Amino acid sequence: MASSVNPPRGMRDFLPAEKSHRERVLGVIRSTFTGRGFDEIETPVMEDSDRLHAGLGGDNEKLAFGVLKRGLTRDDLSAATEPLDLADLGLRFDLTVPLARFYATHRAELPTVFRSIQIAPVWRAERPQKGRYRQFVQCDIDIIGEAGPMAEVELITATTATLDALGLAECSIRINDRRLLTSALELLGFPRKEHEAVLITIDKLDKLGHDGVISELRDRGFPAGPVDSLEAFFRRPTTMEYLPFGETAIRKFLPEGVDDAAVAELASIGETVNEIVGRPVVQFDAWLVRGMGYYTGAIFEVAHPAFGYSLGGGGRYDGMIGRFLGTDVPAAGFSLGFERIVDLVELDSDADRDAVAIVYDGDADATALLTAQGALVAEGKRVRVERRPKNIKPLLEQLAASGFSSYAAFSAEGALGEWKTLG
Amino acid sequence: MASSVNPPRGMRDFLPAEKSHRERVLGVIRSTFTGRGFDEIETPVMEDSDRLHAGLGGDNEKLAFGVLKRGLTRDDLSAATEPLDLADLGLRFDLTVPLARFYATHRAELPTVFRSIQIAPVWRAERPQKGRYRQFVQCDIDIIGEAGPMAEVELITATTATLDALGLAECSIRINDRRLLTSALELLGFPRKEHEAVLITIDKLDKLGHDGVISELRDRGFPAGPVDSLEAFFRRPTTMEYLPFGETAIRKFLPEGVDDAAVAELASIGETVNEIVGRPVVQFDAWLVRGMGYYTGAIFEVAHPAFGYSLGGGGRYDGMIGRFLGTDVPAAGFSLGFERIVDLVELDSDADRDAVAIVYDGDADATALLTAQGALVAEGKRVRVERRPKNIKPLLEQLAASGFSSYAAFSAEGALGEWKTLG
Repeated sequence: MASSVNPPRGMRDFLPAEKSHRERVLGVIRSTFTGRGFDEIETPVMEDSDRLHAGLGGDNEKLAFGVLKRGLTRDDLSAATEPLDLADLGLRFDLTVPLARFYATHRAELPTVFRSIQIAPVWRAERPQKGRYRQFVQCDIDIIGEAGPMAEVELITATTATLDALGLAECSIRINDRRLLTSALELLGFPRKEHEAVLITIDKLDKLGHDGVISELRDRGFPAGPVDSLEAFFRRPTTMEYLPFGETAIRKFLPEGVDDAAVAELASIGETVNEIVGRPVVQFDAWLVRGMGYYTGAIFEVAHPAFGYSLGGGGRYDGMIGRFLGTDVPAAGFSLGFERIVDLVELDSDADRDAVAIVYDGDADATALLTAQGALVAEGKRVRVERRPKNIKPLLEQLAASGFSSYAAFSAEGALGEWKTLG
Repeated sequence: MASSVNPPRGMRDFLPAEKSHRERVLGVIRSTFTGRGFDEIETPVMEDSDRLHAGLGGDNEKLAFGVLKRGLTRDDLSAATEPLDLADLGLRFDLTVPLARFYATHRAELPTVFRSIQIAPVWRAERPQKGRYRQFVQCDIDIIGEAGPMAEVELITATTATLDALGLAECSIRINDRRLLTSALELLGFPRKEHEAVLITIDKLDKLGHDGVISELRDRGFPAGPVDSLEAFFRRPTTMEYLPFGETAIRKFLPEGVDDAAVAELASIGETVNEIVGRPVVQFDAWLVRGMGYYTGAIFEVAHPAFGYSLGGGGRYDGMIGRFLGTDVPAAGFSLGFERIVDLVELDSDADRDAVAIVYDGDADATALLTAQGALVAEGKRVRVERRPKNIKPLLEQLAASGFSSYAAFSAEGALGEWKTLG
């Protein structure tokens, strides 16, 4: 296979079996979300470049693919001082920035509380590696216009229902609140202006462990007092006995004196979801950070017991819509990382339609052949017609591998033979 | 609405009602094609720039959006002599060039005769106008590896079945053959090297009429003799009596002496499809050109009696795969113009799932509320929970307009009231 005919670096083709599996998993996700009253929308794959680079996308902004302005002259090229001067559009790097723009454009036509679904590809010019692609699908649900914790409860319940429908009931939802992080850092003595910087290191806890985080904080030159306090805090023995989600459990993992309102709200979200779902699916994670700086309240992540990475995440981002609309509107969202999920899901093979093949002789009457096909399609079957090759065995193997259940020969005289089982 | 929050020029957002209609129409198309043994595949939205600009896309190549190389320095910018020097990737302008590349990449894993479905957006930087967008969806089926007219018969039959399933049975398929056009122009005296140029004008017959075409050919300086012959040919009285599709009918519209093999093959394709479909859906159009230079045999277009433009088209393009693979492989395809079709289709409203709303008091118990929602979802309903606003009327109107059939109140005490019909 010549390398000159591969898809672009970090991007993938999907052959029939994989495409069909992906579409069926997306169908389950879409159906679970629409069942709970969310509505699917779509935005163009491109947004104006200055919107994508408005500071809402964090590090992802740097990974955006830029789209060349049309009709550029040689003078334009030499006048440009940086690549972005030549791009007026860019490919979206997430679905949240386009949603905020969409809401600002169409607010007058949308319900007061708008529950959106977006199932669509995004693009990031990252260094490709195993499991990380430059084009990948995200499945986002968002609730815009609901300020209370009911939004978080709906989002987490709908996500849990989707994971259950996909056979991933072993997943749990780790939750935290940005206000608790701020409050805890303050109590430990970190000056507020350093919080974002400190959180960048704490966000690596899964990878570095407690000691690694402490030594990185020291290396980065944060004040010794607060870092010592954090270290002491990390070393505290935490009783491992099971505590049901609630205020008591949350306070156990935090310095004394944290933001009472945030504790109460987070406890109520977790308790409510756990009661609805009927198992302790929501777990508190005192040092869950989520990279994006735009979160303002609860934050959450999907954890799977067998994997070190999350399968999705989200949170409340009350300030973002205002950046486009001019008026703040409360909002929260949950995004499923489809590429990680699709590989874990096993669905029964497509039982909707029995697939059969008619193998015809080269001189068979096309009218009779396709009329026979049409009659079987009308009965609800999936029917492929295949010209009989000299050696039929590879064809039959290929059909069986592609999920076809049986085949019949079609003779030059126009007679359909007996059905034979494949595979 | 500030203009700064619109989607990019010539591109559209889809709100819930329109998105849902689009997905349902796509579902019918997908299901009809898969029913007839075609398999859906997917390629990335971008292809390497030099593949998109390999001369296979005709005028569309000039309309491709270019994607900026990553990591460009100021030196790169000043060294560039044309915009394409700065783009290594581009957004696809059709689905045929990516399919040819896909087939070249994966040939070893694909069936000998490969029937593909692609349902996906493409991008062209055209001047936006009514009904013409810069991002739009195409629905393509292609058969690769079948040299005989069975490919055309399958493609046209599957397309007709799809149009029927969409309630567009009034459409007809106009067909012609590139070899007949060549043969006719030769018989009229046009030198072969001028054929492509002459066909560009003949392609405007729908718009310019016979006289317009003749005068444009004269203006463009083509030799007077052949143009006179074409004019005389256009003026010939053609009997308008109905002739069933076949060799006799085809020859009636062409100069005497045209390519016998092409006439026989085209007649057989049309007769076969018309017999299978059971009505004269295929009609011969002696001056159908189809813009793309890559067609090598039969060409076809979907015509609708109420519109001057086609709803789709395709043809045989035996030379194209070889451009990527190095070995010629016969191929033919049919592309439906989804954006033109989706506006014509009326489907019954989504009868799959009854949509209902639960309107809750602000202090209602969230656990009881979402448990009630979950129970109704489990019964197959689509259920939205809505907080009761001060004035309930606009909410109820909005729900009715969004297709919700009924609603019930949910009290602070956790009791679900009686169901009331909406709208």
